[in-house]
Amino acid sequence: MAPEIPHDQPSIESPLSGEKLDNLASKVAASIEADQRTSHLTTSYLPSRREVIGALERLNWLLFPGFNGPREIDASKLTAHTRSLLAGIAGPLFHQIAGALRYEEAAEPITFGEHCPDCDVRAREIVDGFLEKLPSLRSTLSLDVQAAYDGDPAAHHTDETIFCYPGIRALWMHRVAHELYTENVPLIPRIIAEHAHELTGIDIHPGATIGNSFFIDHGTGVVIGETTIIGNHCKVYQGVTLGARSFEREADGGLKRGTKRHPTLGDSVTVYAGATILGGDTTIGDHCIIAGGVFLVRSIEAGHTVRGPKAGMRLNENRPDFK
Amino acid sequence: MAPEIPHDQPSIESPLSGEKLDNLASKVAASIEADQRTSHLTTSYLPSRREVIGALERLNWLLFPGFNGPREIDASKLTAHTRSLLAGIAGPLFHQIAGALRYEEAAEPITFGEHCPDCDVRAREIVDGFLEKLPSLRSTLSLDVQAAYDGDPAAHHTDETIFCYPGIRALWMHRVAHELYTENVPLIPRIIAEHAHELTGIDIHPGATIGNSFFIDHGTGVVIGETTIIGNHCKVYQGVTLGARSFEREADGGLKRGTKRHPTLGDSVTVYAGATILGGDTTIGDHCIIAGGVFLVRSIEAGHTVRGPKAGMRLNENRPDFK
Amino acid sequence: MAPEIPHDQPSIESPLSGEKLDNLASKVAASIEADQRTSHLTTSYLPSRREVIGALERLNWLLFPGFNGPREIDASKLTAHTRSLLAGIAGPLFHQIAGALRYEEAAEPITFGEHCPDCDVRAREIVDGFLEKLPSLRSTLSLDVQAAYDGDPAAHHTDETIFCYPGIRALWMHRVAHELYTENVPLIPRIIAEHAHELTGIDIHPGATIGNSFFIDHGTGVVIGETTIIGNHCKVYQGVTLGARSFEREADGGLKRGTKRHPTLGDSVTVYAGATILGGDTTIGDHCIIAGGVFLVRSIEAGHTVRGPKAGMRLNENRPDFK
Repeated sequence: MAPEIPHDQPSIESPLSGEKLDNLASKVAASIEADQRTSHLTTSYLPSRREVIGALERLNWLLFPGFNGPREIDASKLTAHTRSLLAGIAGPLFHQIAGALRYEEAAEPITFGEHCPDCDVRAREIVDGFLEKLPSLRSTLSLDVQAAYDGDPAAHHTDETIFCYPGIRALWMHRVAHELYTENVPLIPRIIAEHAHELTGIDIHPGATIGNSFFIDHGTGVVIGETTIIGNHCKVYQGVTLGARSFEREADGGLKRGTKRHPTLGDSVTVYAGATILGGDTTIGDHCIIAGGVFLVRSIEAGHTVRGPKAGMRLNENRPDFK
Repeated sequence: MAPEIPHDQPSIESPLSGEKLDNLASKVAASIEADQRTSHLTTSYLPSRREVIGALERLNWLLFPGFNGPREIDASKLTAHTRSLLAGIAGPLFHQIAGALRYEEAAEPITFGEHCPDCDVRAREIVDGFLEKLPSLRSTLSLDVQAAYDGDPAAHHTDETIFCYPGIRALWMHRVAHELYTENVPLIPRIIAEHAHELTGIDIHPGATIGNSFFIDHGTGVVIGETTIIGNHCKVYQGVTLGARSFEREADGGLKRGTKRHPTLGDSVTVYAGATILGGDTTIGDHCIIAGGVFLVRSIEAGHTVRGPKAGMRLNENRPDFK
Repeated sequence: MAPEIPHDQPSIESPLSGEKLDNLASKVAASIEADQRTSHLTTSYLPSRREVIGALERLNWLLFPGFNGPREIDASKLTAHTRSLLAGIAGPLFHQIAGALRYEEAAEPITFGEHCPDCDVRAREIVDGFLEKLPSLRSTLSLDVQAAYDGDPAAHHTDETIFCYPGIRALWMHRVAHELYTENVPLIPRIIAEHAHELTGIDIHPGATIGNSFFIDHGTGVVIGETTIIGNHCKVYQGVTLGARSFEREADGGLKRGTKRHPTLGDSVTVYAGATILGGDTTIGDHCIIAGGVFLVRSIEAGHTVRGPKAGMRLNENRPDFK
């Protein structure tokens, strides 16, 4: 993410005349006022990507203490250190979640009413509930770390997977985003997911339900859709899509939203690089292995290996014009 | 992008002796002097990636006010705020473009002559012309935002697509880069494109011509080549390549540069994940649908759906040795 | 990479009561103490990703002077400038490498013994040896830059490839990481490789052996495994995997680590987008061309072109329900 730069300190003087700037400013301001879709002029409670990512970074220091953030944490002061970090996470997270709830109520005042007097109460509950889950989240991530080590012969130690594996990075952010998604927090889970996608090339929708001991190797190009369900001990490689088959439409022609559109994987399923599995009714049974590049839109019973057709190939001596 | 760190403040003392450092410095300096390809020692006007990206970031605040950058912009002060941002963009942009023009003239003094007295004049014209186009650029982006919402059943609001969709991020940067490419600005359009590629995994050459209401979903691995032409209302998914078929060569054996090498898509064309369409003569007609994974090097008439061969698959019970 | 934020300056006050925070802190601290896999509380010598990336950034200024980092370097002061940069690289690099060696000895005290009195000596040797190789590394990178220009008709100048080509970025970081890998430096080579992967989408294991004049175009999704060997003048496009076929296991059921698992490419081999080549015994001979999307698990003799089967396709007029 590019650093934000203070807008009031242009580093170099403008080459345009004051009159020219006045003229441009009027036109651009008019274009901002004319289009509601691309601006939020007075919405103070809109989520801030910077704040969300800052809280996420501090959270990382609690999930994997010592790997990132402060070093040499005195064991006798661990509780005090943890408390200080928790306070530093709870504040911004509360502020962002309360804002996001208020934002949603302003758009469509269904749950709490337009001015949303209860947004703060609900945000506090969500933050509290989320932080209460940190110990169990840490246990889950510990299993993911072990799964990454067990799944890759190039790994020398579980520490290496925490330091260097994009799959671990994408997964801890997903597990955080998924908790907030489950509590119906608007926008913020998707901001977290897209931050993970930016850093890793792994695009997991916060809605996806993922079991224990999940391992994604390499990961670039992986797409896991909103209503995907994945069992325990599954492995997925780079370029795998667990996606939607086609989109149903409402009577008004708009897309139908909220149905099960993405596949279900049982336990101990392995999906090799570049395979594509589509459809909300597609279920892959326990212990199945899906070979690289396979395109699958039907269910597979447990214990099967699916490969593509024996492809054959055309092998020619190079023609001089084929470069 | 990693932050730049001041080179004169090494955070930790070197373990090597002064003599050793002297010796190394001579050798490395000699290697720098000996190779012209990898150094620019005195070229003050070489573009700076940092400055370009800084201007781009501020531009984002004008394209989507309130989403990133300053919040709670007082409507009565919108024009003043806009003017201040415009000045803060025009300055660095002018400086970078004038530098890039001077850089190009130094390499091959064709247009303005070696010392390029008119580089500043031309840069001012380009900045002026570009900023004049901001209102129409904003309208175009508003249509892209709507297309992203219309195209994805997982989206809850157009705001979500501005906050979280890599396709929107790649596209606003592309549309900016394309304007500068059209004005023959050297290097800077490619720096912008590669910045977008770094953040999103979507690699669009600034030369590509893209119509209104374009939507890229997920996006990782998308490659759109320099001479690609895309109509209105098209959709493209992750891993799609719109690329060159093979490279023609000049009489001297070098690659022929500047010909139409990439495909043309009509209006309302959808290309699903992982499909590859190659060749400057390849034209995909209006309303065509190209299924996932299809490899296409020929033209398709309007209104057709192209799928790969019925693949079949080999389904076996797992052998114990197939892990 | 998101910037680190000081943990002791929470930007917003916590909404939770002091009692609540005390309670949470005890639980989270207990979960940290209970799981050894996800924390390193007192290991002061654990590598720091920030420090490693900082040193890497300064190294970039020596490998491509003037492109990034300080500008307008007075030719008469080049040696002094180089010396200052070298000192600023040697210090942090030494500190990180000594820490990584000590970290490894603490885990399994084989080479230098548990307290590792010789870790500093060995680290100094490694830094010294690495910096001695910089001139030859610069020559190698100069050839890579030329290969990128020669291989892409969209490039206008070799400078453009240094500024904007993810392949060049991934490759200079790989060549640095590979030198450290060869000296058995723990963790740091993988941290460098994953940093390159984050920025470019190109995932090259530091163990991979890559010849001169290598070119990766676009690059997103490329995976090159640990024991891959690549000759001179090869080209690889986006989405190519040079990977392992299947994993052998030890008697105890764990993965066998350290065998040749990835393919060998001869000289002047081109592998087009999305092709997959797997297996430690798979050898692709000189001047071979592997077409896009080909899946290959056998060796190919020199001078051949490999394409997939003539695929055919199913071309239908759009059904109204196929959107």
